[in-house]
Order: sequence, then structure tokens, then C-alpha cells
Amino acid sequence: MEGKKASESFTIMNELVLPNDTNVFGNLMGGRLMYWMDIAAAIASGKHCNAPCMTASVDNLSFKNPIKLGNTVHIEAKVSRAFNTSMEVHLKVWGEDHLHQYRYESNEAYYTFVALDPNTNPRPVPALIPETEDEVSLYEGALRRRQLRLILAGKMKPHDANELKEFLFK
Amino acid sequence: MEGKKASESFTIMNELVLPNDTNVFGNLMGGRLMYWMDIAAAIASGKHCNAPCMTASVDNLSFKNPIKLGNTVHIEAKVSRAFNTSMEVHLKVWGEDHLHQYRYESNEAYYTFVALDPNTNPRPVPALIPETEDEVSLYEGALRRRQLRLILAGKMKPHDANELKEFLFK
Amino acid sequence: MEGKKASESFTIMNELVLPNDTNVFGNLMGGRLMYWMDIAAAIASGKHCNAPCMTASVDNLSFKNPIKLGNTVHIEAKVSRAFNTSMEVHLKVWGEDHLHQYRYESNEAYYTFVALDPNTNPRPVPALIPETEDEVSLYEGALRRRQLRLILAGKMKPHDANELKEFLFK
Amino acid sequence: MEGKKASESFTIMNELVLPNDTNVFGNLMGGRLMYWMDIAAAIASGKHCNAPCMTASVDNLSFKNPIKLGNTVHIEAKVSRAFNTSMEVHLKVWGEDHLHQYRYESNEAYYTFVALDPNTNPRPVPALIPETEDEVSLYEGALRRRQLRLILAGKMKPHDANELKEFLFK
Amino acid sequence: MEGKKASESFTIMNELVLPNDTNVFGNLMGGRLMYWMDIAAAIASGKHCNAPCMTASVDNLSFKNPIKLGNTVHIEAKVSRAFNTSMEVHLKVWGEDHLHQYRYESNEAYYTFVALDPNTNPRPVPALIPETEDEVSLYEGALRRRQLRLILAGKMKPHDANELKEFLFK
Amino acid sequence: MEGKKASESFTIMNELVLPNDTNVFGNLMGGRLMYWMDIAAAIASGKHCNAPCMTASVDNLSFKNPIKLGNTVHIEAKVSRAFNTSMEVHLKVWGEDHLHQYRYESNEAYYTFVALDPNTNPRPVPALIPETEDEVSLYEGALRRRQLRLILAGKMKPHDANELKEFLFK
Repeated sequence: MEGKKASESFTIMNELVLPNDTNVFGNLMGGRLMYWMDIAAAIASGKHCNAPCMTASVDNLSFKNPIKLGNTVHIEAKVSRAFNTSMEVHLKVWGEDHLHQYRYESNEAYYTFVALDPNTNPRPVPALIPETEDEVSLYEGALRRRQLRLILAGKMKPHDANELKEFLFK
Repeated sequence: MEGKKASESFTIMNELVLPNDTNVFGNLMGGRLMYWMDIAAAIASGKHCNAPCMTASVDNLSFKNPIKLGNTVHIEAKVSRAFNTSMEVHLKVWGEDHLHQYRYESNEAYYTFVALDPNTNPRPVPALIPETEDEVSLYEGALRRRQLRLILAGKMKPHDANELKEFLFK
Repeated sequence: MEGKKASESFTIMNELVLPNDTNVFGNLMGGRLMYWMDIAAAIASGKHCNAPCMTASVDNLSFKNPIKLGNTVHIEAKVSRAFNTSMEVHLKVWGEDHLHQYRYESNEAYYTFVALDPNTNPRPVPALIPETEDEVSLYEGALRRRQLRLILAGKMKPHDANELKEFLFK
Repeated sequence: MEGKKASESFTIMNELVLPNDTNVFGNLMGGRLMYWMDIAAAIASGKHCNAPCMTASVDNLSFKNPIKLGNTVHIEAKVSRAFNTSMEVHLKVWGEDHLHQYRYESNEAYYTFVALDPNTNPRPVPALIPETEDEVSLYEGALRRRQLRLILAGKMKPHDANELKEFLFK
Repeated sequence: MEGKKASESFTIMNELVLPNDTNVFGNLMGGRLMYWMDIAAAIASGKHCNAPCMTASVDNLSFKNPIKLGNTVHIEAKVSRAFNTSMEVHLKVWGEDHLHQYRYESNEAYYTFVALDPNTNPRPVPALIPETEDEVSLYEGALRRRQLRLILAGKMKPHDANELKEFLFK
Repeated sequence: MEGKKASESFTIMNELVLPNDTNVFGNLMGGRLMYWMDIAAAIASGKHCNAPCMTASVDNLSFKNPIKLGNTVHIEAKVSRAFNTSMEVHLKVWGEDHLHQYRYESNEAYYTFVALDPNTNPRPVPALIPETEDEVSLYEGALRRRQLRLILAGKMKPHDANELKEFLFK
């Protein structure tokens, strides 16, 4: 199976924040945003592996600025690294207030998807070929994020997580 | 008020076709697609005029290929011309089947939006500056599409619609 | 196949405008209304041809008055003419403010639906029999609207559109 | 305050049963139908009293035939009697299968609505004037249905419910 | 088939009242609440009979206090009695205002569900074993509620409804 | 401000997986589940601090078993520790297949919420008092989870994260 470039999975999504998406302060609810991010990441994964995909995990994500009712949510998703049967998708999310011509960061996240064959078993995915400097840096960081995921899921011993240790305590 | 480039309003939207969006054949319902196109066009208008906007009209649109359940809807919207207080937005819509790596045209459409001030009165919008060949061609065609809109709304006499006549019966 | 009367497909739909249907001004979004109109027109088509139907095209439509949050949307749909495998559906939409006992026009539109057999191929539909003066007038106008649709879709040369020419430039 | 005719509140609603409205058998869920009936009854109440209304109670309702995915739900609502500040709305619901040209009863129900003034206090509603034989019969039955409601809510003693007793044990 | 305890079907549901769930006063619409109650009752029925279930009827229900936008809806559902192929589910609903630490009754209701086999025919359900004093009292009252349901559906003569008569006019 | 017991914020939510919540395999989409979990956690936070709350962050979460269409999602949420103006909420999620009487783990997660005053500024929250062994263990682990959050957000140096280091590399 030939590798695919990071840029081939690039996906943009824009959504308008409607009343039902907001809490009592008129700000977008975190859960609604994670739902949209999941759809964007699923589309990016599908572009990369040309197979149906399922969310396997979501890394720690923190919301920086609330997105207001009537503002636009701008989501960009791109596969950052492929493993055997799974892919890490990197997402960046902004809020856009077109009235005040103001664009503000909401969050940055990593969703992991598994590719499935018609019997719902995991199936191999193409390798990811990073090209730009950013893509290379995301590609390299993917290893230590994966180690953290495995440790938190109890599937790896911290002492074996070399990249993570190096990153945390160099 | 300074003009703004067409590219400044460019908006991309990607949506996954879910079960509730489909008819008995598992194809995306036309009304659901027009809803998403309306959101995409509203975002593009907002980017152009930095004011809240309201849909004023939608031109004749025809659906070429049904978009399937589980496929991705890819919508691109860009303001094609501004008039005094309104903007014409050009939209192109594709379906994308990532499993079969197949992308197919759904439709091409023109939505017109009005910019509003806080009292809900129409307010002036910046002129649109087309740059690419495509943008220029859309810009020029906007006049005759507007004449057709006015005629169909009973606000213009066909004999005064010079651009439209020229286009239809040159 | 026997023809069917226009009145047999007559369909009424009433919907309440809820918060999520509205824009920042508390007015019904155009896309949401086109979604409801599509459902109403699909029901009217189904009544006429007793087969599943799919939206083929929507004619130019313009929104006259915004419909307010909490108001009722009143939609009436009726098949206006049948062609071989397709039907034109005529829709009229009002807003109703029961508190102020005020009813106002929103728009008038034409949706075209195709009837499908179980293999998703177009299938013949019964002829439409207009009875009232209004129905006859809609029936007759359907020809020139169809010519306009075909011209705009690049499937007919303007010079062959006799009814349309006659209507525009008599 | 002048009375209003039953026919003035008559409201028709048609909805298409979409996948998300159905249970594992592909039948419309009861709760989804009661939601639509509530909207239809709220519109009918609003037409009668020209004030915002709130659901006060729903009488015993039983579902006769399941309505299938893709079928049309046809709801008819009409105020059957007005009391001081409340109205009883009579609803009839059918399923319609346009493919098989088959229309079947789903249920018949009574919703009671209260009219509210801007401070959310109950406010008087116009009397209901029944005209047809059906309307008169619904109007007369409203008394004993109200007695049953009051008894079930613990607000009336069964022995004072003359109309109900007469109806049940004459 | 062995009986099952009432407590085995106990189901709790909490929902947040979002803008689209409310009427013009910012209060939860009755229809939306009946939808949630239907889901809660369906889950409770499924726990009791381990088969897919369908709503058969809903008893008279009256709304005591409106539940406010942003408040929590707290629903508790438990099977109160099983008949041959159907179950009565008892529901209690509160609104919760966590800001003011205030919990208020909304309503109490009885939904009846039928268990279905894979051919959509009714199938036997386990007997219900009440344990607490409340469960016993609900179990005993189920008979007369069933008689009322049958009378209102025209399937029983009032004079045969001994438990109901006894309850009403002892 | 007096502390509050963990049990006071305990919240249960049950939801039915409907068609629109699922992917092409008929499994609940991860994003939809994170949306429900966000609502459950918001309710638990509101119970603890009696103030409106906003999602601040979500810890690494991984989905163990897909939840099937028609199955029930069972969510339990409880505040595990309070900091100055924020609370960590611990969630456990199961899928329940009532037909096969089978209950399976979906995931375990930590959401962090901030309490807000009417000006949308963070405001102090009561301390959390753990009582059971589980609550104490969650309470104690909260420190190192917080350190990980701060490190990942670039707000703490790994070498200062004593509890985390101890946990990872003791």
C-alpha cells in the first residue's frame, strides 16, 4: 500500500453557532463542538484511508475562548500520522466574528480513528507522508502522544515510553 | 467604503450525510442540502460585508447527482457580485465517496443576501473585486441573473433587461 | 395511466418557528424554510404519482417578508403539471402571527420532482388535470417555466423556447 | 369578548416520517408523534385565543396503527371547547402510505392549553362556537372529559361529576 | 417465564432544557417533554421484557409547573405492572433549578408499552413483582387504570369495570 | 463556603441510540457520545456549585466498545475534585443491550468545568468532600491529572509535576 500525503486529507468545515448549540451565556457548548470536530476528523480519515472509520480516542483538549452565538466555527482537520490500522488526526478550531472582523483560537486537538473492513475488523491504512515543516513536526510528535495514550489506557508501561520521557523530562 | 476581493469571502463546508438527511432511497434530500447551502452562503456574505445578512432569494437550481448516505457533501461559496445593499453568492456542491475515491457534481447555485443594520434595515455593502478569470466571468453574469430575478419577481420589464436579452437571444 | 386532478395532491403544512430555525434577528432562516417546502412538495408529489420522488430542481424563489420566531409557517403545495417522469409542484408560503391576527406572504415557489421505480430509474407519472381557473393558469405557465429551467441547465436553446419568448417579449 | 367558531382554529399538519423518528421496527415512535401533535394543538389554540398558549394536560391517548418510515403523518387539530382561561383541542391523526394509496387511523386525542398574558398569568379566552354536528358533539363531550381530568388530578370528587357519571353508567 | 422485580426496570434520565425545547416564554414545551418521557419509558420496558417495545397508550397527564430554559429535567421510570403482552410504566418528572437549589414537580404519568417478537407480533412479558409499598400501590392501581383505558378505547363496558367503579364511587 | 459531598452531584443519564446518532456500521458516533457526556457533566457541575458552568477541558478518552443502534447509553457523572473556580467531573459510560441482557463498557472520562458569575468571570466553587473509597481515589488522582492538563496546555513545567512524575515513574 502506497503512502499518502498529509495534504490529501485536509478538510475544512464551517458551521454557524445556532441557539440550540449554546449554553445560558450564549456560548457554544463544548460537547457540540466536539461533535462537529468528530465529523471533520472522520471526513479527513476517510480521505486518507478510503475506508469507513470509527473514533478510537480523543486526546486531552482544552477550550481557550468561548465561541459566541451567531459566530462561525472554523475547523481544519488533517491526518498527522498513520499507524498500522489507525490514524491520528490533528484539528485546529477558531471562532470567527465577521461583524467585528475578529478571529480567535478555540482549541487544538488530536482524534484517533481506526479504519474498518466490511466485517468491522481493523484494516491496514496507508502510511502518512508529511511535507511541510508543520506536518513533519506533527508527525514526529505523534509518537509521544501515542505513548501517552497507551499509558493512560494502561497498555504501556511509562518506563518504555522513551519519546514521551524525553519530551517531558529532557 | 472600500471594495473587497472575491477571495476574501471564500467559504468551504463539509458535511457527512447522516440517516435523517436521506429519503427512502438513502439519498440526501434536496431541502436538507439547500439548508446547508444557505448556511454556507450566509457565512460567505458575512465575511464580505461584516454585517448580519438575510437570504433574499435563491436562483433556479437543479440537482445533477444524488448524494449517498455516508458520503461527504462538499460546498464552496464565494460572493460573486455586490449591489447596493445585497450580494450574490455563487455556490458549487459536490458529493464525495471516499471509499471509491469518487467525486461527483451535485449542483451550482446563486443565493442573494441582504446586509442589515441593527434596525433590520438594508445597509450598503462593499463593492466586490473579482480577480481570477472565473470570478470575472461570474461577476459579469451577475447582471443578467439579477435582471432575470427582477423580471420573475415582477419588478422589471423584460424589454429593459438588456444583458439578459443579449445572453438569451444574441 | 389515468390522469389525476390537481386537488388530489393538495398538501397543507403548518410549522412553528422555533429558536434554532432563526438567525440573529429572530427571523426564520431561508434554508430552513426551503427544507420544509421540500418536505411539503415531496408529500404532494407522492400523492400525485404514488411512487417515491426525488427533488430534481427548484425555480428562482424570493423571500418577501421575514417570518418571526414564534410565528407559524403555513405552506400549501399542489402539483401544477406533470411531464413524462416529473412533476412541477406549486407552493405558497405565509407567515401567521396569531397574536396580532396578521397573515403575511413569504414566497411562492416551484419545485420539480422525479418519480422513481425501485431501481431508482425515472418512471412515468399520471397526467395532471387542472380544474379551477388558478390551476389552469399554473398548468399553462408550467411550459414556459420548464423552458427556462432547460435553458438555464444548458439543455435547450433559447430560440426554441417559444412559450418563454412569447411570455417575456410578446 | 366575542366567541369564535370552531372552524377558525382548524389546523392541518403533514410530516414525513424520517429515520430518526422511528424505533428498531421502522415505526414512528409515540413520543415523536405526541411532540408533533403538541405543535399542531398549540397552533390551533393560538388561532382561537390570539395569545401565547401552554400545554396544560393531555388526555388518555392510544395508538392504533404504527406509522411506517417514509409514510406521511397527517394531523388535524381544532378547538373543541373553551373554558375560562383554557381550551380543549381535539386532534385526529392518520398515517398515509402514498405508494399503496392507503390511509390508516393512528389516534384521536384531546390536548388542553392555557392562554397566558405577558406576565405568564392565565387570561380569558373567547367562547367556542360549534357549528357542525361533529363540533357540537365534541363540545358537549368536553364537559365530561374535563370532569375526568379534574378527578384524575384530584381536584374534583367523583360524585360531583354528573356528566361523567351519566356517560359511564346511565 | 419468571417474574421480574419492579426495581430491575428502574431508569433515570436527565436532560438540559435547550432553547429549541422552549416556547415563547422560555418554558419547556409539553410535546418535547412527552418525547423524552417516551424514551425513558421505552428503556424501562426494554429492561423488563428484554424485547423491543412499542408505545401502545399514554394515560391522562397534566403539567403542574413549567420547566425553565437552562433547568434540568429529571425523569424516573419504572414498570408498575405487566399484563399478558403489555406493561404499564410509571413516570415521575421534576424540574431542577441548580442555581436556586430548587426542585419542583412537573408531572406523573403512565405509559403502556407492548413487547414485540421479530415479526412485530405481541409477545408475552414476564410478570411484575412489586416489592416496596409504593410499588405495591402502583401495582394495585394498575387494574383500574387499565379498565379506564379500555373504556375510553371502547373495548370495555363501564359496568364491568369493577375496580374503577369501586375507586370512583365507593 | 462549605464543602459538598461527591454524592450530591451524582447524575445519571440514559439515552437511546437512534439512527442519526450512528455511522455506516450502525454504531454510535464518538462525537455524539461526547456531546451527551458534556451535558451529563454540565448537570453534575451545576449540582455541585449551583452556578452556570462552562466546559474548560476534556481529558484523553478512548472508546472501548462501540454502542449499537437501538441500544441504551448509560452515563454516570460525579464531581471528583474541586479546585478554586473549576471542578473535575468523572464520567463512566456503558452500552446496554436489553434484548441480550448484556452491558458493556464504553469509556471512562474526565471533563473539567469552570463556574461563572453573571459577568462570565470564573467564581469560587465549594470544596469537594469524597466519602467512599472510590471517591477518595478519584479525588487523589485529580492532582496528577491536573498537572498533566497544565503541562499539555503549556502552563506547567513537567519537572514541577511531582504527583504526575511519582505516578508515572515511581
